[in-house]
Amino acid sequence: MTISFSAPPRDKAALEGQGTFTPKFDANGLITAVVTDARDGELLMVAHMNDEALSLTLETGIAHYFSRSRGKIWKKGETSGNLQTVTEIRTDCDQDALWLKVTVAGHDATCHTGRRSCFYRTVSLGADGPAVSITDDVRHFEPGAVYGDGKA
Amino acid sequence: MTISFSAPPRDKAALEGQGTFTPKFDANGLITAVVTDARDGELLMVAHMNDEALSLTLETGIAHYFSRSRGKIWKKGETSGNLQTVTEIRTDCDQDALWLKVTVAGHDATCHTGRRSCFYRTVSLGADGPAVSITDDVRHFEPGAVYGDGKA
Repeated sequence: MTISFSAPPRDKAALEGQGTFTPKFDANGLITAVVTDARDGELLMVAHMNDEALSLTLETGIAHYFSRSRGKIWKKGETSGNLQTVTEIRTDCDQDALWLKVTVAGHDATCHTGRRSCFYRTVSLGADGPAVSITDDVRHFEPGAVYGDGKA
Repeated sequence: MTISFSAPPRDKAALEGQGTFTPKFDANGLITAVVTDARDGELLMVAHMNDEALSLTLETGIAHYFSRSRGKIWKKGETSGNLQTVTEIRTDCDQDALWLKVTVAGHDATCHTGRRSCFYRTVSLGADGPAVSITDDVRHFEPGAVYGDGKA
C-alpha cells in the first residue's frame, strides 16, 4: 500500500473543512462506501473499504473494496467483468463514509443476482408485518453462467 | 417497539427473494441507511438504525436513526426542523443495508453544517497525498442559530 492515511483531527473545524483527507475507519478498520451510477445517480450498492482498498481505488481509479465475507481485497467485477471506474469520490462531514460515483463496465450490472442495482426490492409494512417485494427484476446476466461462488 | 423483525433466513434464495423483510443488524445491533433526496436522487447522508429506529420509521413514515455518538434514538430534524418524510425504503440483496428516499422539510438541508448534503467535499489524490476540497459551500441555515450541540 502506497498511501498512508493520517488519523482524524480532534478539532471539529479541521475535520469538517478542507485540506488533508483523514478517513475514519471503524473498529474493524473499515469505512462504508456508497456507490452510485455516475450516469444518473442510481444507488448501485453499499460496500466497505479498508485502508488498502481505499488506497488501491485512489491510485488506480478502479473501485476496490474489502470483502467481509471473504476477508480480503475485492476488486469489484474482476470475475463478472463489471468493473467500476470511479469518476468522483466524496466524503461526508465527519469523514466516516465515502460516496463513489462510478461507470460500470461489462453487463452494466452491479448485483451478483444480475440486476443493475443491489437495491432491487422495496420494503413496506403489510398486514402480516414488514415485507419486501421485488421492484426491479431485469437480469443483465445469468449469475450461474458468470460465476459459481455467488459473488460479483 | 411494535414491529418484531424476523432473523435472516439461512437459505440464500429466501434472503434474496420476496416475502418477509429480515433486516440483518450488525454486531452492534445496527443497519446502515443510505439517504437520498426523493426529488432528484442526491445523496444526503449515511446513518445507522437499530431495530427501534427502523420500527419507528416504518410506522410513522418519518426517518428515525440511532445516534452512535449519543447512544440513543435520533429523530432527524427534531431540533433543526429538517424532518425527513420517507417516500420509499429499499433493501439490498443480503438485506444488510437500507436505502431511504426522503423529502426534507424546513431548510431543505440535511448536514449539521447547514449544507444540503453531508457529502459536500471531493476527495482527490494530490502531490502531498489524499486531500479533500469543498465542492458545495452553500449554507441553507446558520448552525449556531439553530442548535448549540452541533447535531441536526
